[in-house]
Amino acid sequence: MDSFAVETSEAQQTLDLEKNGHVERTQWVLNAPEPPSFWREVLDSVKKTIKPPGNTSEILKRQPGSKRVVLFLQAIFPILSWGRNYKVTKFKNDLMAGLTLASLCIPQSIGYATLAKLDPQYGLYTSVVPPLIYAVMGTSREIAVGPVAVVSLLVSSMIQRLEDPETNPTAYRKLVLTATFFAGIFQAAFGLFRLGFLVDFLSHAALVGFIAGAAIIIGLQQLKGLLGVTHFTNKTDVVSVLKAVLRSVDHSWSPHNFILGCAFLSFILTTRFVGKRNRKLFWLPAIAPLISVILSTLIVFLTRADKHGVKIVKRIKGGLNPSSVHELHFNGPYIGEIAKIGLVIAVVALTEAIAVGRSFASVKGYHLDGNKEMLAMGFTNIIGSLTSCYAATGSFSRTAVNFSAGCETAVSNIVMAITVLISLELFTKLLFFTPTAILASIILSALPGLIDVHEAYRIWKVDKLDFLACLGAFVGVLFVSVEIGLLIAITISFLKIILNSLQPGTEVLGRLPGTEILFDVDQYPMAAETLGVLAVRVKSALLCFANANFVTERILRRVSEERKDAKGSTSTAKKVDLVILDLSNLVNIDTSGIASLEELHKNLVSNGMEIAFTNPRWQVIHKLRLANFVGKVGGGRIFLTVAEALDACIGGRRAAI
Amino acid sequence: MDSFAVETSEAQQTLDLEKNGHVERTQWVLNAPEPPSFWREVLDSVKKTIKPPGNTSEILKRQPGSKRVVLFLQAIFPILSWGRNYKVTKFKNDLMAGLTLASLCIPQSIGYATLAKLDPQYGLYTSVVPPLIYAVMGTSREIAVGPVAVVSLLVSSMIQRLEDPETNPTAYRKLVLTATFFAGIFQAAFGLFRLGFLVDFLSHAALVGFIAGAAIIIGLQQLKGLLGVTHFTNKTDVVSVLKAVLRSVDHSWSPHNFILGCAFLSFILTTRFVGKRNRKLFWLPAIAPLISVILSTLIVFLTRADKHGVKIVKRIKGGLNPSSVHELHFNGPYIGEIAKIGLVIAVVALTEAIAVGRSFASVKGYHLDGNKEMLAMGFTNIIGSLTSCYAATGSFSRTAVNFSAGCETAVSNIVMAITVLISLELFTKLLFFTPTAILASIILSALPGLIDVHEAYRIWKVDKLDFLACLGAFVGVLFVSVEIGLLIAITISFLKIILNSLQPGTEVLGRLPGTEILFDVDQYPMAAETLGVLAVRVKSALLCFANANFVTERILRRVSEERKDAKGSTSTAKKVDLVILDLSNLVNIDTSGIASLEELHKNLVSNGMEIAFTNPRWQVIHKLRLANFVGKVGGGRIFLTVAEALDACIGGRRAAI
Repeated sequence: MDSFAVETSEAQQTLDLEKNGHVERTQWVLNAPEPPSFWREVLDSVKKTIKPPGNTSEILKRQPGSKRVVLFLQAIFPILSWGRNYKVTKFKNDLMAGLTLASLCIPQSIGYATLAKLDPQYGLYTSVVPPLIYAVMGTSREIAVGPVAVVSLLVSSMIQRLEDPETNPTAYRKLVLTATFFAGIFQAAFGLFRLGFLVDFLSHAALVGFIAGAAIIIGLQQLKGLLGVTHFTNKTDVVSVLKAVLRSVDHSWSPHNFILGCAFLSFILTTRFVGKRNRKLFWLPAIAPLISVILSTLIVFLTRADKHGVKIVKRIKGGLNPSSVHELHFNGPYIGEIAKIGLVIAVVALTEAIAVGRSFASVKGYHLDGNKEMLAMGFTNIIGSLTSCYAATGSFSRTAVNFSAGCETAVSNIVMAITVLISLELFTKLLFFTPTAILASIILSALPGLIDVHEAYRIWKVDKLDFLACLGAFVGVLFVSVEIGLLIAITISFLKIILNSLQPGTEVLGRLPGTEILFDVDQYPMAAETLGVLAVRVKSALLCFANANFVTERILRRVSEERKDAKGSTSTAKKVDLVILDLSNLVNIDTSGIASLEELHKNLVSNGMEIAFTNPRWQVIHKLRLANFVGKVGGGRIFLTVAEALDACIGGRRAAI
Repeated sequence: MDSFAVETSEAQQTLDLEKNGHVERTQWVLNAPEPPSFWREVLDSVKKTIKPPGNTSEILKRQPGSKRVVLFLQAIFPILSWGRNYKVTKFKNDLMAGLTLASLCIPQSIGYATLAKLDPQYGLYTSVVPPLIYAVMGTSREIAVGPVAVVSLLVSSMIQRLEDPETNPTAYRKLVLTATFFAGIFQAAFGLFRLGFLVDFLSHAALVGFIAGAAIIIGLQQLKGLLGVTHFTNKTDVVSVLKAVLRSVDHSWSPHNFILGCAFLSFILTTRFVGKRNRKLFWLPAIAPLISVILSTLIVFLTRADKHGVKIVKRIKGGLNPSSVHELHFNGPYIGEIAKIGLVIAVVALTEAIAVGRSFASVKGYHLDGNKEMLAMGFTNIIGSLTSCYAATGSFSRTAVNFSAGCETAVSNIVMAITVLISLELFTKLLFFTPTAILASIILSALPGLIDVHEAYRIWKVDKLDFLACLGAFVGVLFVSVEIGLLIAITISFLKIILNSLQPGTEVLGRLPGTEILFDVDQYPMAAETLGVLAVRVKSALLCFANANFVTERILRRVSEERKDAKGSTSTAKKVDLVILDLSNLVNIDTSGIASLEELHKNLVSNGMEIAFTNPRWQVIHKLRLANFVGKVGGGRIFLTVAEALDACIGGRRAAI
């Protein structure tokens, strides 16, 4: 065959393709390879979920034995891989960040421990072991691990219902440690089985509302310390707490406590304001709490104000974290309850840690592996629960300080932990005279950062239903209880998904000038509808029992309205006689959906109209074929694109005329 | 300006459009008009739901007063509009169909009444008033209204738990009538407030499983009549019923009953087989039950077999439906329970009626107005409950007979009702010797039509999750209880929707030869990916808290894998440096979705890659604008189509080289 013949035949082919293009392309649609079966998809999804990212396992296989062990250890302990490139210059930054962190962490830890209704030293313990474990297992470079306000509130509000921390502190502490152990187990399990998506169930909007509500609850609880009240309520909802406050204001409160607390609270808030104005002074708000503790302790010590009603911390047990293996109890009467509490703590703590970690990771442009993070957090809490620590996670405020202080790696966490350890060994005796009002004011000073009104407004502006989830969580936490708030938020979030699938709209399509593609005429007013043709697209990814009838009724109503209008008007308006249903959006369809498409087809045809279906996706065309839908409507009624359907149907009609 | 100048400028414009087309079209994307606000959408949806279809209200306004009343009445009573064109030829067909229907209906009604544990005449009552009401208010031309098997089972299984029909039949009947009244109120309310979509919650697949399960339960219950047993269980699950049957077979059963019942059951089934083979003999299976009743009554009367253990119906109270207004009780102890039962009956009865009506309407090519149907059914049951009728709905089997018998309008229902009325007045005394075993065999003969194994297999083939809902309903009804079966089916159906939104895949896009549009490369193996570009589309209509992180992680993993592969291989494979995220499928997005898109953008950019977003839909681009996403990534990163994004990004790069 000479070159000329080849060229001619190629030209002929191109011409054929041009002419019969849509026929051939319809064949492409109809003869697509089979999509993976249901079982295959389930298997694949499990495999993809369980398989570590990248081709780690393949790389592992290629290596000799010893190297394999090293790689495996590096995967579990990331410090082994980044530690090898660790330099002195980095350490300088980490040291500074770690010391700044410690100065903020010591007073906060003591305060959060009292919020969790534990002895102050347990807060300090929780700032020693967890940061060390996280430093060797975690992948985030900025997260500061330790006790945090919201989790401390969760612990006390849920566990004090089982055991009173005032009358039976040892039993209460045992329950707290057991719940921490369970939380660790759940977190590690989430990481191992790659259930990271579970953490996503608490949506961003719900989290904003939940944390804001929790912050207000925490703030109200601090009034106990600030007013120097002895008897207080164990409930967390705002009504009970306010009642307790009013009752105590009537009876016994000490103005000294209040004045001392407020004075230092304003001091801390002022330093924060200064720190915000002048970025270079970021360390000022970070060390202000420590300064407050030292100053107030000195004042009380010198004036012996504790004799005049100022409540003081008294003895803090010093020394290293004691072992608490014997304190875990797995056969008590509350074991089921404690496991449930552990699950709630696990989810909330992880959500907070991963939200914090992700936001700073994306600033520095690296990706946080959610599953590895969960594994690290899980081990952190498991080992923590064996060494007298209660539930730890990444702290919003301290992570921000760590970042501002210029931390480079998790070494700043190690520096912090060692500093806290030294304080535990040497300085706890000095905290004897620290007034409890100062601890309350340190916690109070951390709260404004948790109430993000600006973000709530942004959510309101962008998505009203998201705001509803946010508001639901907020109101639930505030007026009912912490768990109910969480439950409301999750329920609203899922209802939103169902609502979105329930009543999908349909959109009418028109051709945009200069393109061959059809778009929503509402979104693009310059898109032109074709006369006598109604091209519609379903605005949903799933045509199913819950929306299929709704969709077909909308389409039929629209058709009959347009036909009525055409009849009534005196203009040259043409009656709709071709309906094109664009299936582009549909990722899946169920048997009810197929039945309603069949009904639509029958109904339109028996009323003398034509119908064409365009761009069915993989699963959809597969199921339509299985249900013999293609046989019923005819393969010639299915096209790749709306433009082709238009050309074929209208072109064909013109040819017939 | 002369014509030449105009032409040139036009040509220039076309050229400009060609050259800067994508820039202008991006402006179209970015400057789309605002979509209707959230409140507006809610209002519109309510309005569209409540507003009757078409422009009825506008037409009404244009008419004078008297005409307006006529039109309004016609909307409520469709008989006024189709009745005016009613002709004698139509009546001939309707008369034949109505008489055939009555001959099937009389024995079935008596049987279903015993299934509902009521006296036989209540079944006949229910075949008089409800068909008459439906005939003037309904829009379906084929539905045969009256008592049906599944609803009768629902009534007895739910109400006998509150009151024993054997020991206290009057109290039981009062509860049944009250529940019927509630069911009517609920149905009418659904119709008035246009809540038709509620009926869709029971998906087609679930209904198939539910009805099959109910049919088996009903069949087992008939063993009581067939075996002539006196004591039986009140439970409906298959295990309890089989136990009761085995127990009674041990003790006291009468072979006469069994032989009589089986003989006539085989006669009815034989006529059905003949009727199916020869379509012209459709009337044979329809009148076979009546023939069986007459023959068996004669046999018993002549042989006085009732003296030898054959159980007979005995007295059926004759005469017109008595009023039952005084039997409705709204202040008993069970009122809440009865209202709940009324709701379940309302939903199941409506689902059956609308499914039956729709399937025959689409055969004849007219559209059934679901909301009007619900209103009609509601009034049918309300008025029914005041005239000694229990819950009625459209019957599968009798509607099919009505259709085969050539009914034209609802007049066939009127003919049937009048025939039943005459029988009630004249012939009830003749039924004294009718053996109960015959009633059992008539019900049994109707059951095979309710167990649609073929359809269940089709569902299995097309959609495995749909089949799970079907199976769940079936097993739930069979082994637990009727309500649990319904609950399981609805739960599985909704879980399916959530599951579909939870883990959406992403699909890689490639250009199809001969088109400018990009399609899924898995579905179309001939689609070609562009070197160095990863074009992906999210397979979901909603990017939200539950799937956003999953989607971004999949994309990032894919990018890093492709980059690793490119590094490793020795071929000329090009590293991916442009990611195009096609948002076509996304109808909506929430704040978590926007946050994850921002994270994806930051992450890719900080790793030296480009990212472009294409075809954001109306709500999506609106929310992205509100969240200032467009400002953050730059408007130049957003395109109308993937092809334009490709051309702009790669073209721009070439120009730079």
